[in-house]
Amino acid sequence: MDITEFQKRGKEMVDYIADYFKQLEKRPVYPDVEPGYLRPLIPDSAPQEPENFEDVLKDFERIIMPGVTHWHSPYFFAYFPTVGSFPALLADILSGGIGCLSFSWAASPACTELETVMLDWLGKMLNLPEEFLAGRDGEGGGVIQGSASEATLVTLLAARTKMIRRVQSENPELTEADVMSRLVAYASDQAHSSVEKAGSIGGVKIKTIPSNDKFAVCGSALKKVLHEDRAAGLIPFFFCATLGTTPCCSFDRLLELGPICNKENIWMHVDAAYAGSAFICPEFRYLLNGVEFADSFNFNPHKWLLINAECSALWVKKRSDLTSAFKVDPLYLQHCHQESGLVTDYRASNQLNEALLKSINEARKIHLVPCHLREKFVLRFAICSRTVESVHVQFAWKHISKLATDLLKEC
Amino acid sequence: MDITEFQKRGKEMVDYIADYFKQLEKRPVYPDVEPGYLRPLIPDSAPQEPENFEDVLKDFERIIMPGVTHWHSPYFFAYFPTVGSFPALLADILSGGIGCLSFSWAASPACTELETVMLDWLGKMLNLPEEFLAGRDGEGGGVIQGSASEATLVTLLAARTKMIRRVQSENPELTEADVMSRLVAYASDQAHSSVEKAGSIGGVKIKTIPSNDKFAVCGSALKKVLHEDRAAGLIPFFFCATLGTTPCCSFDRLLELGPICNKENIWMHVDAAYAGSAFICPEFRYLLNGVEFADSFNFNPHKWLLINAECSALWVKKRSDLTSAFKVDPLYLQHCHQESGLVTDYRASNQLNEALLKSINEARKIHLVPCHLREKFVLRFAICSRTVESVHVQFAWKHISKLATDLLKEC
Repeated sequence: MDITEFQKRGKEMVDYIADYFKQLEKRPVYPDVEPGYLRPLIPDSAPQEPENFEDVLKDFERIIMPGVTHWHSPYFFAYFPTVGSFPALLADILSGGIGCLSFSWAASPACTELETVMLDWLGKMLNLPEEFLAGRDGEGGGVIQGSASEATLVTLLAARTKMIRRVQSENPELTEADVMSRLVAYASDQAHSSVEKAGSIGGVKIKTIPSNDKFAVCGSALKKVLHEDRAAGLIPFFFCATLGTTPCCSFDRLLELGPICNKENIWMHVDAAYAGSAFICPEFRYLLNGVEFADSFNFNPHKWLLINAECSALWVKKRSDLTSAFKVDPLYLQHCHQESGLVTDYRASNQLNEALLKSINEARKIHLVPCHLREKFVLRFAICSRTVESVHVQFAWKHISKLATDLLKEC
Repeated sequence: MDITEFQKRGKEMVDYIADYFKQLEKRPVYPDVEPGYLRPLIPDSAPQEPENFEDVLKDFERIIMPGVTHWHSPYFFAYFPTVGSFPALLADILSGGIGCLSFSWAASPACTELETVMLDWLGKMLNLPEEFLAGRDGEGGGVIQGSASEATLVTLLAARTKMIRRVQSENPELTEADVMSRLVAYASDQAHSSVEKAGSIGGVKIKTIPSNDKFAVCGSALKKVLHEDRAAGLIPFFFCATLGTTPCCSFDRLLELGPICNKENIWMHVDAAYAGSAFICPEFRYLLNGVEFADSFNFNPHKWLLINAECSALWVKKRSDLTSAFKVDPLYLQHCHQESGLVTDYRASNQLNEALLKSINEARKIHLVPCHLREKFVLRFAICSRTVESVHVQFAWKHISKLATDLLKEC
């Protein structure tokens, strides 16, 4: 498909989506199919010849649509809202078109920077305490996760690492496994199943705190369990407080629970995945700006802010708790701006290669990243774009040769 | 933004992307910005009044574009290809427009079914052994992950659970923590950093196997480490074999390694994230159809098959290894078709509510899911769609009342 056909088909697709929304109310919200309905409708293996685009769309209407649960139907009252919106769809077309990845600052600086600044905006809208914001030189900040479940997992793992290090620094004779076997995390007995799953992935005990007759966890209930567990030799390290998380309705009493966790050195994560309450409840806004609130806070813009799934916003008071818990620092993700800096223990040829890579990337005509093959610093040349022709590779080779020659002259 | 404006803006956006690709070669592939470049270019907090769409696009060109690394530029030779394509962009517009989630079969049956059947297609194209396919009644099958790193983590965790259960069944006196402290996973000393990260998340030891002068792990090297570790009381449980994974270039010798892992009861995961070799190397295609191959296999269609990121295809020989490792089974994700079935231990009022929910969802006029509040079976009514009006809620209420009345008459 060339650019011209993309323009034609892309516009047809926009019209298809528009029609979908116009007619959505008339489609049955929940599909009338049995498990396995789809397999008999399509070939057993991929066809050797392509279908044309019209036929693909016909297949979509005939094979896929009968099995779709229509989350945007006004008759859909299940699970939770994944509201989305037309501006969000436009943004998706734009970011999908540019199609850059952002696993490091250098992989696409605008992505990381926009994420950080937008989560500062959003945190201010929520009235989050200042320490959760990145600002120009704050220690906190926000990061986008795929789901609230992911946010719970990430914070549980960060809390696990933090507690293991703390306990080991006080008891150097204990192994990581010794400490892990005694760690225990907590959540309300009404909490979402993702907390149990996070504990299972992280290999730590999860205990539930009994909720009261309003389905909330009280400070006294948390204190009681902590007391018992410490007496039994366990090490409490994480408490996930759920705020109106779907589908349960606990509203844990943060004002009581935050100070207890703070005092007991327990990471408190507030999972407000489903909390429209974050915006509408004055008590909550007050709370969010209180002290001793929590170590991390999460809610889902894709549930409440007209943003397409998946967008779950997670804030932490200390960014370093997250980054240090998962630190792996391979060469191919290092770049000259990262905080850690490069350790320059290379031999002469490595230094030359490193200098060459620097001059290549500073010239900005082409872009490469390095790797280590054992002790050797290697410049990787990967053919990446779908549109690379031999002319581009030849240009790159001449360019690299010129820069290398210049560099050798300087030596 | 209403539907009509979406159609106008959507088409403009398609043209914008088309122009982006036409001009892409002229943009500098790597941005000339310093960390923190973006924050001063935008306000400190979200504006109270919206901008119009033209101004948003101008901001995009002025603020975002200067900080973008152009992954699709023909001068981009860094990291790995994330090729994408125009048909993939069209598919993204379509699936983004429908916007359904698919965390269970019932959440949108077409998603789960299409994924399973397409991964059978892809597995056949790769010449994967039959046992990796789901088919109509196979035990294996494929599932899409976000990245090869995720696939490594998921399989490591599944292997961990499997080994813990095996060891505990033979030694019931051992706790989970006892077993975990002795578990050890392996990868080549040239493997991608994601293996180390997976071990750190899963709380298990990771050891590297020395690679030979061709950067490959030989059977003898693996055997040696296994022998030493078993003698030291450790329990080997997982080996991640990397096949041409970026950025290292090890090509582990699967024909040797597979049988060793099989014999030693070690889960072998083949991470072929970057392996175009999967398609072009005859030896590999032969290997893929050999016996004693591995427990799981992964490669990245978003690197090689013109599919937009993220799409990492993971196959396992036993689906139950994955599902049982992470099983949590809350009520709101249960549906009448799932294998486990509902445990009917409800009291009378619960049975009525359950029957009511069944009649609501079978009528397909509206869609609800249940939850448990302690011992009570509750019908949740969540306002989800952006387009819900009071007329839809009133309709739903009358509909529910009617079905409830009918049900009570039957009692």
